[in-house]
Amino acid sequence: MSVYQATASAPVNIAVIKYWGKRDTKLILPTNSSLSVTLDQDHLRSTTTSRADPAFTQDTLWLNGKIDEIKAGGRLETCIREMKRLRKEIIEDKDASAPKANQVDLRSLQLSEYKVHIASYNNFPTAAGLASSASGFAALVSSLAQLYSLVPPLVSPSTLSLIARQGSGSACRSLYGGFVAWEQGVRPDGSDSLAIEVAPQAHWPEMHALICVVSDTKKGTSSTSGMQRTVETSTLLQHRIKEVVPARMAAITTAIQQRDFDTFARITMADSNSFHAVCLDTEPPIFYLNDVSRAIISVVVEYNRLSVERGEGYKAAYTYDAGPNAVIYALEKDIKEIIQLVLAYFPQTAGEFKDVLGVFGGSVQDVNVHAKIPEGFNDKVASKWEVGSVKGLIHTKVGDGPRALAPEEALLNADGIPKTLA
Amino acid sequence: MSVYQATASAPVNIAVIKYWGKRDTKLILPTNSSLSVTLDQDHLRSTTTSRADPAFTQDTLWLNGKIDEIKAGGRLETCIREMKRLRKEIIEDKDASAPKANQVDLRSLQLSEYKVHIASYNNFPTAAGLASSASGFAALVSSLAQLYSLVPPLVSPSTLSLIARQGSGSACRSLYGGFVAWEQGVRPDGSDSLAIEVAPQAHWPEMHALICVVSDTKKGTSSTSGMQRTVETSTLLQHRIKEVVPARMAAITTAIQQRDFDTFARITMADSNSFHAVCLDTEPPIFYLNDVSRAIISVVVEYNRLSVERGEGYKAAYTYDAGPNAVIYALEKDIKEIIQLVLAYFPQTAGEFKDVLGVFGGSVQDVNVHAKIPEGFNDKVASKWEVGSVKGLIHTKVGDGPRALAPEEALLNADGIPKTLA
Repeated sequence: MSVYQATASAPVNIAVIKYWGKRDTKLILPTNSSLSVTLDQDHLRSTTTSRADPAFTQDTLWLNGKIDEIKAGGRLETCIREMKRLRKEIIEDKDASAPKANQVDLRSLQLSEYKVHIASYNNFPTAAGLASSASGFAALVSSLAQLYSLVPPLVSPSTLSLIARQGSGSACRSLYGGFVAWEQGVRPDGSDSLAIEVAPQAHWPEMHALICVVSDTKKGTSSTSGMQRTVETSTLLQHRIKEVVPARMAAITTAIQQRDFDTFARITMADSNSFHAVCLDTEPPIFYLNDVSRAIISVVVEYNRLSVERGEGYKAAYTYDAGPNAVIYALEKDIKEIIQLVLAYFPQTAGEFKDVLGVFGGSVQDVNVHAKIPEGFNDKVASKWEVGSVKGLIHTKVGDGPRALAPEEALLNADGIPKTLA
Repeated sequence: MSVYQATASAPVNIAVIKYWGKRDTKLILPTNSSLSVTLDQDHLRSTTTSRADPAFTQDTLWLNGKIDEIKAGGRLETCIREMKRLRKEIIEDKDASAPKANQVDLRSLQLSEYKVHIASYNNFPTAAGLASSASGFAALVSSLAQLYSLVPPLVSPSTLSLIARQGSGSACRSLYGGFVAWEQGVRPDGSDSLAIEVAPQAHWPEMHALICVVSDTKKGTSSTSGMQRTVETSTLLQHRIKEVVPARMAAITTAIQQRDFDTFARITMADSNSFHAVCLDTEPPIFYLNDVSRAIISVVVEYNRLSVERGEGYKAAYTYDAGPNAVIYALEKDIKEIIQLVLAYFPQTAGEFKDVLGVFGGSVQDVNVHAKIPEGFNDKVASKWEVGSVKGLIHTKVGDGPRALAPEEALLNADGIPKTLA
C-alpha cells in the first residue's frame, strides 16, 4: 500500500492595497479588493505536510509541533472539509460517473474519506510579529491539493484561493507568486472572491522588501475583531471602500505592469496611511503604529524627498499591516542604501533576523558598521533610536507561489506523527 | 488730554468638532464648521493692552515683552487694520455724517488714525504646548474693541469674531464663553464665517476639563501648513467635510443643549479620532499623537467601558488638537476620580501646572499620593509611564468670554511701553 502524503510550502504576502473589513464574516468576503506582493519563500515560509490514512481516527493538526484543535465549524475545519469536498466533486464523483481511473492518478478514489494528519511549521518566530495565517493556510491548502491531486490544469490556484480565503482572508493571495490581487467579488456565496495573478515574480524580480521588526509593549487589537469594529463604527470606511480603493487598485495594477516604481510607492504609502486612518476612525480607535513606526515613516519620507529633489522619483515605499512592523519596498539597486540608512537610525543587535548581510557581502559580524546617511539627507527628521527599538531586519524580495516539496522534506514521520514535537 | 487705552483678557478654547482645512487661506475661511468649549480665564488666558496715541510713530506689538513684527499683509496687521476700519465705519464716519457725539462716547473721533502700541501676555508657557494664537488674537481684538468703543449693543462678539478669525481661525471661537460654534459660512468674502454662542457658560457650568501636557521630542507639523497638505492630498477629507462633520455639529449642539454628557463624549472622541485620521491620510502623513497620547486614550476608553458596564454611560471625553496633549472633558462630579486615575498611570513631578490640587483640598505637596485606579478597571490597558511622560496637568472648566480689565491691570506703562520686557 502506498503512502498518501504530500508536503508543500507557501509564502508570506504583504499587501500594498489593504484588506480591512468583511461583508461576510463566515465566508470571509471582504468589503474591498486588495493587492499584495508575494515574498520569497527562501526567507519566510510556512511548510505543511498532509497525510491521509484509513487507519487515522480523526483529523489532527500540529502547528509548530503542537496540536492545534480543529474546532467544528472553525476555519481549519472549513478548509479541510472544503478540500475533501473538492477532491470528491472533481475527481472521485467524476470518476464514478465516468470511470477513467487512468486520467486522474493512481491514488485511492476514497482518499477524501480518510482522516488526515497535518503538520505545519513556520520558519519565522511568532515574536517577529509577522502574520503567519496567510502563509499557513496557503500551505495547508497547497499540501492538501497535492495530496488530493487538485493541481493545474485540473484545478487552478484561483480555485484553491477560494478555500484558503475561508481560512484567513489574506491567505488567498499566497496561492500565487509575484503580484496578486484578491478580487472582492459580488456573489453572496463568495464564489467570485478569489485571488488572481496581476504579474508573476519574473515580471519585476527587482522588487525587494526590507522588513523592520518593531518592538511593541502594547498588545494590539486582532485584525479579525478590529476590522469589524471599523466596519461598524467608522464614518470614513465606506468612502474608502467605494471610492478610494477601486481607483488605487486600477492605478497600482498599471504601475506594476509598467514597472513604475515611483507610482507604485506613492500608492502603497497612501493606502497604508488610509488603512491606519480608518483604524483610528474606529470607536474605540485602533492604533497599530507606535513611535518607532512613525520614525521609520519620517526617515522614508525624507529619503524620498531627497530622491525627488535629485530627479529620481520615489525610491522607497513603507507599508504597515495590523502591527508596528514596517515593510519597505524598494528596487534592488536602492536596497543597500536603504538598509544603511535604517541602520543609522535603528542600530541592530546580533539578532536572528539578519538576512541583510547579503548586500554587504555577508562577511561582517557587526552589521551596524554599515550605517550610513546619504548626503543631503536632513538627519533631523528623526532621532536615533536605541538598540532593540527595531529588533530585527529581514531583507527579502518578490517570490514565487506555493511549492510542492520532495517526500524527504515531510514534517511527518513514518507513523504520521510530526518529526519534531514542541 | 485723556489716555486712550484699554486692557482685555481672552480665553483659550478647545474644539470638540475640529477645524482642519481652509477654503480661503488669506481670509481664513474653513472647509467645515467647528465647535469648542471656552476654558476658564482664571487658569489660562491671554491679556492685551492696546493704546492709541497721536504721538506714536508706528503700530508696535510686544508679545510676552518682546517685539513681534507687524508685517505688512500679515495676520497681525490685518486684525489691527480691520479694527481701525470698523471704528471708522461704525463710529467716526457715522458721526461725521450725522454728528451726535454724545451718542458714541467722549473719546476722540480720530482714534482710528492714531498709531497703536499693543502689549500681549500669555499666562501659560509655550512649553505647555497649548496654542496661544486663539486666546492671543481674541485678546488683541477685544482690547482694540474696548479702546475703540466697539462693544455691545453697537458691535456683537460675532462681528468681532470676523476679525479675530483673520488672525487665527480658531481665535474667533474665543470671543464667546461657554459653548461656541464657528459657522463655516458660504460667502466668498467671509462675512458669514463667524462665531455664534451655542450655550453660555452658565448653561452647563459642571463641564470640567483636564489638560494633560504630554512631552514630545518630535517637532510637529504646524497646523497652518498641515491642514492645507491634508486639503491637497487626503482622499478622505472631503467625505469628512461634506458628510461627517455636518451631522456631528447638529448632534453635539443638541447634546449640549440637553446637557447630555454621554452623547457629548462620544461625538467629541469620534471627531478627535476623525481629525487625526485625516491627518494620517495626508501625504506625507501627519502624526500628532504619540505613544503617551495613545496610552491616555486607552485609559479613557477603559474608564468609559467600566462606566457603561455600571449603567452610567460615558464619563470622560478625550480630544487632541494638533499636538500630543490630551484634553479630557468630564463633569465636575467625576473629575476627581479621573485625575486620580491619570495620576496612577502618569505620575507627576512638582511642576508648575498643578491646578489639580483643588479637588484634593489643596493641602498635599506630592500630588501622586492621590493616584488611584477605580475598582473593576482593567489596569492592563496601559503600562504605567515614567515621571515626566505627562509633564503637567491643568484642571480647568468651561469659562466666560473676553473680559474688560481695569486700568491698573494694563501691561503698558505711562509711556506706552510694556511694564515688563523680556
